[in-house]
Amino acid sequence: MRILIINGPNLNLLGTREPDLYGSQSFEDFLKELKSKYTSHDIGYFQSNIEGELISAVQQAKQNYDGIILNAAAYSHTSIGIADAVTAIELSVVEVHISNIYKRENFRHFTYLSSRCVGTISGLGLKGYALALEFLLSSK
Amino acid sequence: MRILIINGPNLNLLGTREPDLYGSQSFEDFLKELKSKYTSHDIGYFQSNIEGELISAVQQAKQNYDGIILNAAAYSHTSIGIADAVTAIELSVVEVHISNIYKRENFRHFTYLSSRCVGTISGLGLKGYALALEFLLSSK
Amino acid sequence: MRILIINGPNLNLLGTREPDLYGSQSFEDFLKELKSKYTSHDIGYFQSNIEGELISAVQQAKQNYDGIILNAAAYSHTSIGIADAVTAIELSVVEVHISNIYKRENFRHFTYLSSRCVGTISGLGLKGYALALEFLLSSK
Amino acid sequence: MRILIINGPNLNLLGTREPDLYGSQSFEDFLKELKSKYTSHDIGYFQSNIEGELISAVQQAKQNYDGIILNAAAYSHTSIGIADAVTAIELSVVEVHISNIYKRENFRHFTYLSSRCVGTISGLGLKGYALALEFLLSSK
Amino acid sequence: MRILIINGPNLNLLGTREPDLYGSQSFEDFLKELKSKYTSHDIGYFQSNIEGELISAVQQAKQNYDGIILNAAAYSHTSIGIADAVTAIELSVVEVHISNIYKRENFRHFTYLSSRCVGTISGLGLKGYALALEFLLSSK
Amino acid sequence: MRILIINGPNLNLLGTREPDLYGSQSFEDFLKELKSKYTSHDIGYFQSNIEGELISAVQQAKQNYDGIILNAAAYSHTSIGIADAVTAIELSVVEVHISNIYKRENFRHFTYLSSRCVGTISGLGLKGYALALEFLLSSK
Amino acid sequence: MRILIINGPNLNLLGTREPDLYGSQSFEDFLKELKSKYTSHDIGYFQSNIEGELISAVQQAKQNYDGIILNAAAYSHTSIGIADAVTAIELSVVEVHISNIYKRENFRHFTYLSSRCVGTISGLGLKGYALALEFLLSSK
Amino acid sequence: MRILIINGPNLNLLGTREPDLYGSQSFEDFLKELKSKYTSHDIGYFQSNIEGELISAVQQAKQNYDGIILNAAAYSHTSIGIADAVTAIELSVVEVHISNIYKRENFRHFTYLSSRCVGTISGLGLKGYALALEFLLSSK
Amino acid sequence: MRILIINGPNLNLLGTREPDLYGSQSFEDFLKELKSKYTSHDIGYFQSNIEGELISAVQQAKQNYDGIILNAAAYSHTSIGIADAVTAIELSVVEVHISNIYKRENFRHFTYLSSRCVGTISGLGLKGYALALEFLLSSK
Amino acid sequence: MRILIINGPNLNLLGTREPDLYGSQSFEDFLKELKSKYTSHDIGYFQSNIEGELISAVQQAKQNYDGIILNAAAYSHTSIGIADAVTAIELSVVEVHISNIYKRENFRHFTYLSSRCVGTISGLGLKGYALALEFLLSSK
Amino acid sequence: MRILIINGPNLNLLGTREPDLYGSQSFEDFLKELKSKYTSHDIGYFQSNIEGELISAVQQAKQNYDGIILNAAAYSHTSIGIADAVTAIELSVVEVHISNIYKRENFRHFTYLSSRCVGTISGLGLKGYALALEFLLSSK
Amino acid sequence: MRILIINGPNLNLLGTREPDLYGSQSFEDFLKELKSKYTSHDIGYFQSNIEGELISAVQQAKQNYDGIILNAAAYSHTSIGIADAVTAIELSVVEVHISNIYKRENFRHFTYLSSRCVGTISGLGLKGYALALEFLLSSK
Repeated sequence: MRILIINGPNLNLLGTREPDLYGSQSFEDFLKELKSKYTSHDIGYFQSNIEGELISAVQQAKQNYDGIILNAAAYSHTSIGIADAVTAIELSVVEVHISNIYKRENFRHFTYLSSRCVGTISGLGLKGYALALEFLLSSK
Repeated sequence: MRILIINGPNLNLLGTREPDLYGSQSFEDFLKELKSKYTSHDIGYFQSNIEGELISAVQQAKQNYDGIILNAAAYSHTSIGIADAVTAIELSVVEVHISNIYKRENFRHFTYLSSRCVGTISGLGLKGYALALEFLLSSK
Repeated sequence: MRILIINGPNLNLLGTREPDLYGSQSFEDFLKELKSKYTSHDIGYFQSNIEGELISAVQQAKQNYDGIILNAAAYSHTSIGIADAVTAIELSVVEVHISNIYKRENFRHFTYLSSRCVGTISGLGLKGYALALEFLLSSK
Repeated sequence: MRILIINGPNLNLLGTREPDLYGSQSFEDFLKELKSKYTSHDIGYFQSNIEGELISAVQQAKQNYDGIILNAAAYSHTSIGIADAVTAIELSVVEVHISNIYKRENFRHFTYLSSRCVGTISGLGLKGYALALEFLLSSK
Repeated sequence: MRILIINGPNLNLLGTREPDLYGSQSFEDFLKELKSKYTSHDIGYFQSNIEGELISAVQQAKQNYDGIILNAAAYSHTSIGIADAVTAIELSVVEVHISNIYKRENFRHFTYLSSRCVGTISGLGLKGYALALEFLLSSK
Repeated sequence: MRILIINGPNLNLLGTREPDLYGSQSFEDFLKELKSKYTSHDIGYFQSNIEGELISAVQQAKQNYDGIILNAAAYSHTSIGIADAVTAIELSVVEVHISNIYKRENFRHFTYLSSRCVGTISGLGLKGYALALEFLLSSK
Repeated sequence: MRILIINGPNLNLLGTREPDLYGSQSFEDFLKELKSKYTSHDIGYFQSNIEGELISAVQQAKQNYDGIILNAAAYSHTSIGIADAVTAIELSVVEVHISNIYKRENFRHFTYLSSRCVGTISGLGLKGYALALEFLLSSK
Repeated sequence: MRILIINGPNLNLLGTREPDLYGSQSFEDFLKELKSKYTSHDIGYFQSNIEGELISAVQQAKQNYDGIILNAAAYSHTSIGIADAVTAIELSVVEVHISNIYKRENFRHFTYLSSRCVGTISGLGLKGYALALEFLLSSK
Repeated sequence: MRILIINGPNLNLLGTREPDLYGSQSFEDFLKELKSKYTSHDIGYFQSNIEGELISAVQQAKQNYDGIILNAAAYSHTSIGIADAVTAIELSVVEVHISNIYKRENFRHFTYLSSRCVGTISGLGLKGYALALEFLLSSK
Repeated sequence: MRILIINGPNLNLLGTREPDLYGSQSFEDFLKELKSKYTSHDIGYFQSNIEGELISAVQQAKQNYDGIILNAAAYSHTSIGIADAVTAIELSVVEVHISNIYKRENFRHFTYLSSRCVGTISGLGLKGYALALEFLLSSK
Repeated sequence: MRILIINGPNLNLLGTREPDLYGSQSFEDFLKELKSKYTSHDIGYFQSNIEGELISAVQQAKQNYDGIILNAAAYSHTSIGIADAVTAIELSVVEVHISNIYKRENFRHFTYLSSRCVGTISGLGLKGYALALEFLLSSK
Repeated sequence: MRILIINGPNLNLLGTREPDLYGSQSFEDFLKELKSKYTSHDIGYFQSNIEGELISAVQQAKQNYDGIILNAAAYSHTSIGIADAVTAIELSVVEVHISNIYKRENFRHFTYLSSRCVGTISGLGLKGYALALEFLLSSK
């Protein structure tokens, strides 16, 4: 199977940004581990700080992937456009948040994506991406 | 007259995205029809998924166009920046929505643009662009 | 085609009431122009200050008309009864507002009619009625 | 006993309007059945689409009736005037809604009448009128 | 001077309706007293339970009167149409409420009329009409 | 037919608790009367102060009854679990409240059950149970 | 009769402060006129910018006056303490506002005093004090 | 490791209740599968419709388990008591919801548990329990 | 005198649960001290995690006690049923909270019990029970 | 120990103001009793109607007292300044309300002081001051 | 130029009150430094805990000063009276807050003064006064 | 010191856009003046209409600058991503707004940045940048 992981703004800082909240491993290192564990599958990766590029990435995934793991970070709470893109394509999308968004500020409790995605995993750290991957692989 | 049509995020999918809501004609086909009907006028077109590029498009229209037809799609409901650009230039701008935004989710009922534009046409399908065009041509 | 234009309270004052907002042409004059332009169609007209009479007018349009252009004015924002009548009949109804209701008081931003009508045209002056008419004629 | 049934806007369409919600029997037919079952009682009937006429009907019931069954339909949710009339007279009034107003739009969940009437019957179809009648007859 | 007093729904019951709140004098008796005190002025009177008739009364006062005393009763809190009529004409209008609307239910604390009228007198009983009259006579 | 009446918390006090609001007859006495009037039907009864036991009672009614009359009392306003149980079974359920819940505190105006039950009878005293019974018997 | 006029903060600036809103007459001049017109009555006057001194003034009026005309200005909207003082004494108190508080900012639309006073006069200028005085004199 | 799965109200109906939403497998069957896959771990199970019994179950887990998988169902949205119990013990608790709670009624979008648990898995069906289990096993 | 102390959910953990907030003394030890100080009075004690059992305990106190000290803990904020039970009996009930509920989450600031009890003591630790006891003993 | 009792606006009227709510004993009499019971302690007293003087009194208590009993009355609900003063000093402050503030108007349910003080005693009459005193004496 | 610095409640404690938030320098010391730096200008200073005295200070500044630096502290968030005084005079007023009011409680995020003053400086410590001074000196 | 000034959307129009609100000087001219005054410091400048580019600019400033002056314009009110970037780096950031955001639309009164920055300067025109610079230079 082909799965695309899409990361939103500031997740390029992972490993250096607020390590209490997000851990001290960079996403690149984590991705390497993940790929080495699932060698028979094609795991793509895209990160951008620009909302419109994330919209385009979701749109284009339709041609090349069987599912998406989406952590839109800050845009999760304000972007109707990314949510619309998720609705427009017909892939299974699982929403992931590294930190527990319900332990943080009120404005992080709501996401436009939750009701558009198959489901959500929040607060389980980078492990959340691995669990989402397993769900997508098993749900085919 | 020179009129610029600006389309926001996900409208590049028109014709394939949720055809119940948006119809099955692509915008490019519709635009060809429209231009062929108004050959004595200059009808420009710009689409982007990136909010900041839409802001720039509105700003630059001032030099080259006499009016704007603006469907900012998902950004209509959240973008103060596009609304500020509309206020900053002195062109007539008509807001268009293909679907009836009042039949959809609550967060689509409000747009930052409505109070900045001359007026709004919502729910009349692609025909809404043609009516907006007629309004702009007749209001000069 | 037979189209009924229904105007709500205070629109009988058009031409004299707040001309900045509503223009200085009376509706009767405008109607004459409109009819002279669409002589092959039957354009009816009804105005009342009484909510219940507007409800009855919508109900009865079903027998005699193919579509309605409805400007319920002040009642747009409070009348569930007119909205229910629109739902009860099976004609296409286009909502029109002469002024841009989003540039005015907050209580004018919501209308019970928007989600019941095919679509809405707001802020394009009396021209809005003409555009609504064109939409109804073209949508058959 | 003398009981007046008062029906509000759009209930004149009963039997033809949204039959899923309101059933396919006209109110006139139902009323005939009801009267034939309660021949020893005087059952009056009044319907209007005009709020002010409903207010007057409630006021005047005081002279001629011992109780009122009131389905103010759309006005239930917005009319302080009908509610004031109910308070002003001293008859028992039972509020009836044919459809279950709590399964519908939010704005139908509140009525100004509920707190002024003896009680409310909602969602039990035309049968609700018969039950209200039985309550009024038994409560004397 | 010519002053029109306009009373809204249920005020025809004055003297019999909730005398604790509204007193036991009928409006007709009060009006007779008032007229006998101001014989050199022309005091008109109009009452209706129908919102649309109140709108029309306000509209038409423009031709025949120099000022209006307006107690729209229950409609004060919900009628944008009456408020629009007050704005449309150019007469001085004083809003009067017999009872103190701030001692009653929450929905009576706001009126659409207050911000359209010159001023408001609330809670001073029928005396409020006399004081409003004096204000209008003195303000010419 | 077999109908189960389910009463929620504090209704075991009926007859002694706030007699102004709830009357002075105990539910047991009322039930005896009701059964004697409907001897050809099987009328079951269950009361509990414990939310979870009410959930279980609704669940189990599916096997033994044709309909439920449900007065969940204080839990009506807070229990998603009882409402979920009503949705999960496929019996007709009529909601009953002895007192008029709209004349009482704001938090009693909403119930989670109203939108899940066929309909609601409120404010008609113990008579409400008898009317609900008649509805269920007649609706088969 | 003995009537005390109490004025709150910034009303010492009357005549100089925002003359569009408050007129150009000082309160002292107005008071002189008023007293000269009602020589047979004792009209007291107190002004303070300090909330607690206004509370004390209301408390002490009980011994020396038969009624109060109270314009608490800015404190009207925030002072529970002045409202409590009005409740604690047993004099008739009429609330007066010079400008129409409903034409101004939202936070001026509510006053803690309105529901504690006999009634309110708003928007009728300094004339409001004279009308309040007449009401108090006539209501004895 | 010893992990306790706690299920709340109506989850005893799994497999029969609204299969569109919850699937058609009973929890007992699912549990058997799960246990057979993780034979080296001790997986306990508790279900109750009674909030207080769920509180007690959470409290007592402290002695016998190393982690909890908690699906409090309807109580998730209203029970401060279960949330307090989660805070009071010091075990890792993962919240699971079978259906996507963000695709359902508004009152299901908030849970008192989310901010007390390590994290939440929502919308991934019964698979959600398996992923939660894997997280707990891996996080030691 | 006979006084019943009723404790709600999770208070069985006192002494071990969040000692910063609730102190490190178990309630049993505290109760022993209290009883030894008031030997001439009968001090009963009941604790449950189940809302319905707390309702029943309040109901039954009527026969055997002269007053109640009630700490309903988490249920204080959501239980209409316990509040109804307090209203139904005619004993003096004092509400106690060990921690200062106003220093904690927003949802703990409101309790359904406060307006039904004689008064409330919050934030004074276990000492609050002793002060409530003294109040009840002195108020007879 | 040295304890200062601070009373806010209108509490100087105690004994005469609304005796149903506040009792008929003056505070001076009550204070005399209290002092005679705790002769070994120094009990100070300050009352003012002026918010700023209450702020100053709290500030200065730091030098001369070991604890404060604070009934800020009407200012409790609006004064951030008194709350800031409580935070600025480092004495234990107990908030007292004579009447049960939760049985009164909504605006009295919130106080800025509750979250700044050690705890609150509400509704226990003048006895509340005595209980607060006992708490402060025992908590040293 | 002549500039008046006005400080509100509790700012007399500066240097001793919550030094984390407000620093450990007293305002008197800071003022001395400031004056020594701007010897060619007249810098006045006024502090009070009493809202009404702050109102009076703003009013009187009109005669003697060319601009005001205003830190109304706690009153910023509740005082319409001080805001009205700022509007009534015609001096430039700059609002200063020592701490960052947006990092603190919600009720400190709004001030009545912000929209009446030229501008606001928040969170820059005592340095904020110096910057405000520079602005006022440079803006003449 | 090295300070980076970051300007958000539409600020590229400065000098031409709404000069009443923003003045008629272009930012480039202002910057030249500023640099000429602080020649011993390194003042960088970045402007973009694209939110994601502003996020990246904040992230990258960490390597090359000692402080940031940030005017995110329209994005201030909606961008969680820029606010997260400010939190992620460890530089001092001062928020600047040219116009007084509290004199404008409600949606401009809140910014996500205020609570993440050291402080805010609003309404002091381009001078605000200079004051922010001085603060940053002095706070080292």
